[in-house]
Amino acid sequence: MNYFSSNFKLGILGGGQLGKMLLHDTRKFDIQTYVLDPSEEAPCKIACNQFFQGDLMDFETVYKFGKKVDILTFEIELVNLDALTQLEEEGVPVYPSPKTLKLIQNKGIQKDFYTQHNIPTAPYQRFENLENLKSAINSQQSTLQLPFVWKCTEFGYDGNGVKVVRKVADLDELPNVECIAEAMIPFKNELAVIVCRNPSGEIKTYPVVEMEFHPEANQVEYVICPARIDEEVAQKARAIALNVSQQFHHVGLLAVEMFQTENDEILVNEVAPRPHNSGHYSIEASYTSQFENHLRAILDLPLGNTDSKVAGIMVNLVGEENFSGNVIYKNIEKILDWDGVTPHIYGKKQTRPFRKMGHVTIANEDVNKARKIAEQVKNTIRVISK
Amino acid sequence: MNYFSSNFKLGILGGGQLGKMLLHDTRKFDIQTYVLDPSEEAPCKIACNQFFQGDLMDFETVYKFGKKVDILTFEIELVNLDALTQLEEEGVPVYPSPKTLKLIQNKGIQKDFYTQHNIPTAPYQRFENLENLKSAINSQQSTLQLPFVWKCTEFGYDGNGVKVVRKVADLDELPNVECIAEAMIPFKNELAVIVCRNPSGEIKTYPVVEMEFHPEANQVEYVICPARIDEEVAQKARAIALNVSQQFHHVGLLAVEMFQTENDEILVNEVAPRPHNSGHYSIEASYTSQFENHLRAILDLPLGNTDSKVAGIMVNLVGEENFSGNVIYKNIEKILDWDGVTPHIYGKKQTRPFRKMGHVTIANEDVNKARKIAEQVKNTIRVISK
Repeated sequence: MNYFSSNFKLGILGGGQLGKMLLHDTRKFDIQTYVLDPSEEAPCKIACNQFFQGDLMDFETVYKFGKKVDILTFEIELVNLDALTQLEEEGVPVYPSPKTLKLIQNKGIQKDFYTQHNIPTAPYQRFENLENLKSAINSQQSTLQLPFVWKCTEFGYDGNGVKVVRKVADLDELPNVECIAEAMIPFKNELAVIVCRNPSGEIKTYPVVEMEFHPEANQVEYVICPARIDEEVAQKARAIALNVSQQFHHVGLLAVEMFQTENDEILVNEVAPRPHNSGHYSIEASYTSQFENHLRAILDLPLGNTDSKVAGIMVNLVGEENFSGNVIYKNIEKILDWDGVTPHIYGKKQTRPFRKMGHVTIANEDVNKARKIAEQVKNTIRVISK
Repeated sequence: MNYFSSNFKLGILGGGQLGKMLLHDTRKFDIQTYVLDPSEEAPCKIACNQFFQGDLMDFETVYKFGKKVDILTFEIELVNLDALTQLEEEGVPVYPSPKTLKLIQNKGIQKDFYTQHNIPTAPYQRFENLENLKSAINSQQSTLQLPFVWKCTEFGYDGNGVKVVRKVADLDELPNVECIAEAMIPFKNELAVIVCRNPSGEIKTYPVVEMEFHPEANQVEYVICPARIDEEVAQKARAIALNVSQQFHHVGLLAVEMFQTENDEILVNEVAPRPHNSGHYSIEASYTSQFENHLRAILDLPLGNTDSKVAGIMVNLVGEENFSGNVIYKNIEKILDWDGVTPHIYGKKQTRPFRKMGHVTIANEDVNKARKIAEQVKNTIRVISK
């Protein structure tokens, strides 16, 4: 199959920042792209060859879009699964496969999958709704212990749909939806490994990264590559991530988020079957960025080198609290003056508290120097409104 | 001035591959772009915010386009100078300035400029046309010695408009246009240094690169960064390039091509006031690519780090002889399998002998390993037609 400067068409479901960064590589390879997104102002609207506005959860919209392209992928999991399944049955290659997506979209099913495949993960119990969870707590036989982490099984993202339940009364603030109750595991670090796999089965892992979270918003604030952990722990994390990808028969990128416990156990938290925030550093720091490797993988081309040229740290640019409206990036000229600093502005016109508006990468030979500059960047740039 | 996700508009004259690669960075910063190019199929047509089709040498077309934007730049020198001058007089910032472009567009004027500013360059004589050159040779007082290099003063590119004259009869094949006769200097290496300067006067040079040329087509085949030369020679070359940029009061990128003579003298050959083929390696190998730095410079933002993360070698992908028509990139899957190899396909549908269709970057910690892989790439990939 000839993808380059040809009539081949790649379809992308979702037109946000992940798609926008992916489009850079489709342009670099001159591969034609069609993008479907509900928003008139989607960051992908330019740079793709054809943009279609429509609902990603609507069967007809997704199905008809899929029929126009030669291979279909997505930059967001919240897409109509039945349409993807139908398209795959009718011979349109969909990567990652809807079979894989089905196992991931629902956190309860995802956790069961880990248990069935002996992949280490925190103990949990599944509940059809909040009522069942409440009665379980009140029942004599309950093995459920407070505090625990409540997670709704679907449609959660960026920390939405996750709450720590310390006392029974906390449950009253929660929606009555399908959920899991997960044991609270004290951990040293949150880590992530991005795995890349093509249909021929070639598979590579990126180095382990360390994630620092914003205390309130529960959003990643810094992603640090390489993670400042023992080589032994790093190897264990990469091996587990590799295993997860293989068990899922996953094609494309799989971001595996993990906890490093106090006694250096690795527990899989959750996965994302697409380019991931924890891999943005790779644009500047890796020989092959996660986006180029996603493209190589779904086109069944040889995978690129996942090693790093230099250390990379990513700082998320999220909308500042108490600001909503037309965005301005205050002090961006200041941060541009520092070594190895590259901002990525996603192109959203409106800012809102904690909305992901962009990110900044700091590339440096020395990860500790990079970390210092990252802190300066974080404390200097402000995402506010006019 | 707020450039990011704002109403600010950057105008780019020329919509070829240089513009296309520049657009990646305008997208990364979410800066609005308008592009003018004569071709319906210009590589820049997607990824810019608005594309205008028109003649870059036509005063009205360029003037009207310039009136639509806040800052104007170009990716090709063959643009209507009077329109740029008019626009600048009317307050539209044009970078590089038409005053600079005027000194560069004509190779005779460019050579005189070097002489006037004590910038080392090969001895030359200017002639209004071929007839004057012929009579000069035949005159008794002639100081002109064969062999010499004939160069037409305008509209030459990629080795067009350059011929070595070994005997008087060779002149008969040449057009009767304004030209220079330049002494043939035996040299060890052709080198280039890209200089970046913003209106505030901040100025940086990229490392010295080494250029290997295709014997017949006189097009660059490999660009090697860092050049494999003595540090002392490298420092001399960077200092001369810096001086050239300052003498021109140049804003944006200036690529300075130089000869390293047998006795390690540095002679300036010619300059290009824009992103340059000799800087494409910087996308993968430098902390800040030449394109991002061009953008930073013309917007008077702080310049990015021009140092390299790793060694980078660029291989030009030019159309193979005896092939014309719809392009295919034969064996591209093979080269993707090698370490640190990234193809850039410009998106031209039709190939022609020696037409620039793309380039491949090889990034590696070791420049000699990179050079070996570059040779393999060169001998493996074929730009042919169906």
